[in-house]
Amino acid sequence: MTLKRGAVSALKKIYGKNRFKSELEDLTCYAFDAVNGRYLPDAVVFPECPDEIAQTLALASEMGFPVVPRGSGTGTTGGSVAVEGGVVLVTTQMNRILTIDTDNFIAEVEPGVITGDFHHAVEKLGLFYPPDPSSAGVSTLGGNVAECAGGPRAVKYGVTRDYVLGVEAVTPLGEIIRTGVKTAKGVVGYDLTRLLVGSEGTLAVITRIWLRLLPLPSSSATMKVSFGSMEEAAAAVTRIIASGILPRCVEYMDEASLECAMTIADLGLPKGCRSVLLIEVDGTQSEVERSVEGVEDLVVAAGAIKVERAESEAEAKRLWMVRKKVSPALYRFGPDKVNEDIVVPRSAIPEMVKKIESLKREYGLPMVSFGHAGDGNIHFNVMIDKKDAAQKLRAEAVVEELFTHTLALGGTLSGEHGVGITKRPYIGKEIGEAELSLMRGIKKVFDPKGILNPSKIF
Amino acid sequence: MTLKRGAVSALKKIYGKNRFKSELEDLTCYAFDAVNGRYLPDAVVFPECPDEIAQTLALASEMGFPVVPRGSGTGTTGGSVAVEGGVVLVTTQMNRILTIDTDNFIAEVEPGVITGDFHHAVEKLGLFYPPDPSSAGVSTLGGNVAECAGGPRAVKYGVTRDYVLGVEAVTPLGEIIRTGVKTAKGVVGYDLTRLLVGSEGTLAVITRIWLRLLPLPSSSATMKVSFGSMEEAAAAVTRIIASGILPRCVEYMDEASLECAMTIADLGLPKGCRSVLLIEVDGTQSEVERSVEGVEDLVVAAGAIKVERAESEAEAKRLWMVRKKVSPALYRFGPDKVNEDIVVPRSAIPEMVKKIESLKREYGLPMVSFGHAGDGNIHFNVMIDKKDAAQKLRAEAVVEELFTHTLALGGTLSGEHGVGITKRPYIGKEIGEAELSLMRGIKKVFDPKGILNPSKIF
Repeated sequence: MTLKRGAVSALKKIYGKNRFKSELEDLTCYAFDAVNGRYLPDAVVFPECPDEIAQTLALASEMGFPVVPRGSGTGTTGGSVAVEGGVVLVTTQMNRILTIDTDNFIAEVEPGVITGDFHHAVEKLGLFYPPDPSSAGVSTLGGNVAECAGGPRAVKYGVTRDYVLGVEAVTPLGEIIRTGVKTAKGVVGYDLTRLLVGSEGTLAVITRIWLRLLPLPSSSATMKVSFGSMEEAAAAVTRIIASGILPRCVEYMDEASLECAMTIADLGLPKGCRSVLLIEVDGTQSEVERSVEGVEDLVVAAGAIKVERAESEAEAKRLWMVRKKVSPALYRFGPDKVNEDIVVPRSAIPEMVKKIESLKREYGLPMVSFGHAGDGNIHFNVMIDKKDAAQKLRAEAVVEELFTHTLALGGTLSGEHGVGITKRPYIGKEIGEAELSLMRGIKKVFDPKGILNPSKIF
Repeated sequence: MTLKRGAVSALKKIYGKNRFKSELEDLTCYAFDAVNGRYLPDAVVFPECPDEIAQTLALASEMGFPVVPRGSGTGTTGGSVAVEGGVVLVTTQMNRILTIDTDNFIAEVEPGVITGDFHHAVEKLGLFYPPDPSSAGVSTLGGNVAECAGGPRAVKYGVTRDYVLGVEAVTPLGEIIRTGVKTAKGVVGYDLTRLLVGSEGTLAVITRIWLRLLPLPSSSATMKVSFGSMEEAAAAVTRIIASGILPRCVEYMDEASLECAMTIADLGLPKGCRSVLLIEVDGTQSEVERSVEGVEDLVVAAGAIKVERAESEAEAKRLWMVRKKVSPALYRFGPDKVNEDIVVPRSAIPEMVKKIESLKREYGLPMVSFGHAGDGNIHFNVMIDKKDAAQKLRAEAVVEELFTHTLALGGTLSGEHGVGITKRPYIGKEIGEAELSLMRGIKKVFDPKGILNPSKIF
């Protein structure tokens, strides 16, 4: 228990009985995220306004207890768990969409808004918020901003960073700040906005977000393309993008991930299929038609053995099933998943897939790769039983080798998941001491007492 | 003279005779930028590699003299002038385009590459680097990154920030750091890359840049649309963008700027024309055709009195002349220009234009506004003779009122020019003390001795 009695009573005063929780059953619900770990906090609070957060953080800095901000807890690197105990501060009750400005294509939201709800709300008005992490049905916009969430559509539309114009946030000393602008452009002062985006809740608690929107594309099309090899699929991706067609999604699955998904569903794959691309294009109807034709020509030239196009929304969903079934199917091979999201230059995907094949042979563990081929963002999974210490060690060695190879190819250890606790041991492989020291210096400027989401990133 | 003798001899040792200059005629060439000021440095050096910059900065931190990084000196807020004397460090000799990766759409460049040269180089390979500040023919990519340059194409393609994947830079203590990634995505550690972008050369000297490229659109079209009023022109912009058409440029000129340009060129404007939109669309040929038709319908419905479309490259240049003639023509009204680049929500442009009209009546100074209507980024100019103290004071009062009104409309004081020295007195109007104090803290982390580009921003 890192909370002194004075802190508990002060927190109860801020949050009342209903929004301050310290019973074991409550704490347990907030002890984990999408990583298989368990870190029990001392208390959980549910603020309704920035002032309550400011009071909480000022108190934490004064009394020295950790505060861990949390949205829906869908993160995959442990960003929202209370590694050192303390208070988990859950923003899900601050979930209003405050404005959607259809003249200026700007929305103002609270951090607890569910990403998918926001998608629906803006789309009803003919607008479009592209970032679509696969957890969009559950994740919060605040969490998306804190982690700089991506998703399949990033290949055309970029990531959360590219849509955040400004934020209101509370610093660890309890000051409410505003960063950035509410306009299309702005370059006054240092870019605190992008410094907060992707800072994994270690610099400030985001309490309001101004987001840039786009006009909703009037049409889209989904295609599933089967190849005899991963190399052909990867070459097709390069050709498509080089042709000037920029699909909004280019997802790939390797042979292992297809095999895996096939254990729980009939994917309707043609004989000899060893890799699948899921491609989505959007725009006006005629643009979409032309893009579909262009993609068809290019994938056939690249050796595709089957090209399917969804004729309806339901059909598109069926095609996406191939991709969606991979993750759940993986658990058949082990209760625990080591889940990495490395990025390599797009052209290096075939080489990376080969490396994964050789790791599989060498270590004898089930591994699959799939992900965002257009970005070079590979979701790599090793299935193990963490209770089996030998397996765990082998998985760690696999990850170590994978990371070394990723960096040698000019890549990065994470495209969208962040560092959190799971990648923390490896950050020094990618980021040098001088750069880490600048980051630690920045952390200290914001959080001199080190109370906000401690033991994360570095 | 802020340079001690020991510093001079150490710098001469680093740069030799040819790349260290301290004669008055040399210093004078580097005493100004696009702002009408004169700040004589003590010396000018021309590094050829990051190591020389590292030695210079380490020396400066040790001996306590200012270093001011400079590209081509086209900035409009005094970012590259040596306000406190010291050494101007000119990066124009580090001007190699190192790689243009046509598979992964990523380029690696040195900071001294001229923006326009880079445009040509990538376009020859079928690629596209959208940021196009109006100084592109002269400005350097390093300067563009330091200032987060924009340009007319920002409305569709965003600003420099959106294309910088990572940089190599030298900190004021003389450490060479690498930030960001060389891949499409990356979220490992704090976003030092975007912190450096737009930091106006106050945090580190950029020595290498990794830039994201796009496929070059195969076609484009330029239109000039004349309106009877600014309100109609502004309403047309809102309608176009709401329709889902995203032109790559939407530039506007108010009546005063048209009158101004007409004093030196025949712009071929129809009778009753009080505002002009210059619109450029791009994409595949058929997309362009459809966009042109869509824009034509929308502007006619919005009350356009004349719509012209360029039938050739030469014709397009002729249409752009309306816009390009404004700035040079302005000097007819006064030897000195007070040049601001405020941003307001797109829909507030008519209100801002009205405000400018009333300022003109109230203060009796020549004022014009033109700029990037799609972004709400207004280039506002007051022409005065700075030697006339009363005029200077009146111009300052105008700017003060303009800024107050801009912020009241939810805008920002700068969309692309930055703060430098000219907007420094006003930064507190937009950015609060808590936020400024964080920025100062960050500055201190990078530059504990305060030697890099001092007296800028805050």
